[in-house]
Amino acid sequence: MSRDSYDEQLDRLTGMLATMSRDAGAAIRGASAALLDVDRGAAEAVLAGDAVLDRRRAEAEAMIPELLVRHQPVASDLRLVVCALRIAGALGRMGDLAGHIAKVVLMRYPVGVVPQPAVPVLTEMADAAARIADKTALVLATRDQLDAMQLGLDDDEVDAAQERLLAMLVAGWPYGVESAIDLALVGRYYERYADQAVNVARQVVYLVTGTIRL
Amino acid sequence: MSRDSYDEQLDRLTGMLATMSRDAGAAIRGASAALLDVDRGAAEAVLAGDAVLDRRRAEAEAMIPELLVRHQPVASDLRLVVCALRIAGALGRMGDLAGHIAKVVLMRYPVGVVPQPAVPVLTEMADAAARIADKTALVLATRDQLDAMQLGLDDDEVDAAQERLLAMLVAGWPYGVESAIDLALVGRYYERYADQAVNVARQVVYLVTGTIRL
Repeated sequence: MSRDSYDEQLDRLTGMLATMSRDAGAAIRGASAALLDVDRGAAEAVLAGDAVLDRRRAEAEAMIPELLVRHQPVASDLRLVVCALRIAGALGRMGDLAGHIAKVVLMRYPVGVVPQPAVPVLTEMADAAARIADKTALVLATRDQLDAMQLGLDDDEVDAAQERLLAMLVAGWPYGVESAIDLALVGRYYERYADQAVNVARQVVYLVTGTIRL
Repeated sequence: MSRDSYDEQLDRLTGMLATMSRDAGAAIRGASAALLDVDRGAAEAVLAGDAVLDRRRAEAEAMIPELLVRHQPVASDLRLVVCALRIAGALGRMGDLAGHIAKVVLMRYPVGVVPQPAVPVLTEMADAAARIADKTALVLATRDQLDAMQLGLDDDEVDAAQERLLAMLVAGWPYGVESAIDLALVGRYYERYADQAVNVARQVVYLVTGTIRL
């Protein structure tokens, strides 16, 4: 295999990761719309999209052994493929987590999952998660360390919102235990979604610098 | 690098994964002891062990690029290293999830997290998770597909127990919303722990057969 076609394959791999990051962003926006607007169609679209994302993840992973075996890559290429595997895994997981939120919506439909007092904090989590998704796509495109570090701020915001949500649920939540558990889990899915985005950013920093902060 | 020293490095990598799988098993047993016996020391030991597991994961991952760059591996070796990356990730995550259970115990200590009516179902989850951990270590050693498939049964048992736990929590749980949320999350951590073990088994099957069921 010539160096050119090898570079083409690498480009195809990074292109696929960029597509997956956009899909993961669409997934969390759709899940938030399903959750906050009690929108069944949006929830179903998230689950359909998750299946596509899982397929793309499998395709991206399948490219890697072939890519390695047909060419003796140099050190920076290897770092890229090792990172690409982890990034594909994290983006796939982000789709799964958006899917978990959509499933909670479908399980309770036509009853809404978010009673009025919880709307502001869930809206904040939804907005922060959407911003994180956009920044993840940006970081994959620019491989800029400063962009990658920005993600941490939104992740902190999601964590803080989850703490506030849990505090609200345990302080005399009048909508019952089932509602409290649904919301605690939904909050956790947003939290994990943001964590996985931070993982992606961390892999990009590793790609650029060769060192990783654990 | 000679083929021999390459094989030695591969052996070292698979040995490290075997060690990590034992650590992940010790972690969930410790977390279950902490949870069911309200044992602070056990919870702290789980968190200390999780830090070791994270370090081992980083070491295992760091071996891979070097291993690839210093030798032109054949296809089956490549499959091994790609799988090794995913397996190291899943085992690390299993340690994290045991750590999450330990943190819930420490957060409520000296109050116990599991009121009497929930002891049987949590004990069942704890036992199934411990069996899964043992089978994961076995599958890594034998690479036997039948052993790998066995894991799915225990995973189903954990999922069914989590359903029963949630049903119990929403049917007039008399210990308050905070307790219900704690238990719903603890149940979810066991569920995810079992899922990650299934991921490990699936990677082993992929390693042996070259095909993966998504």
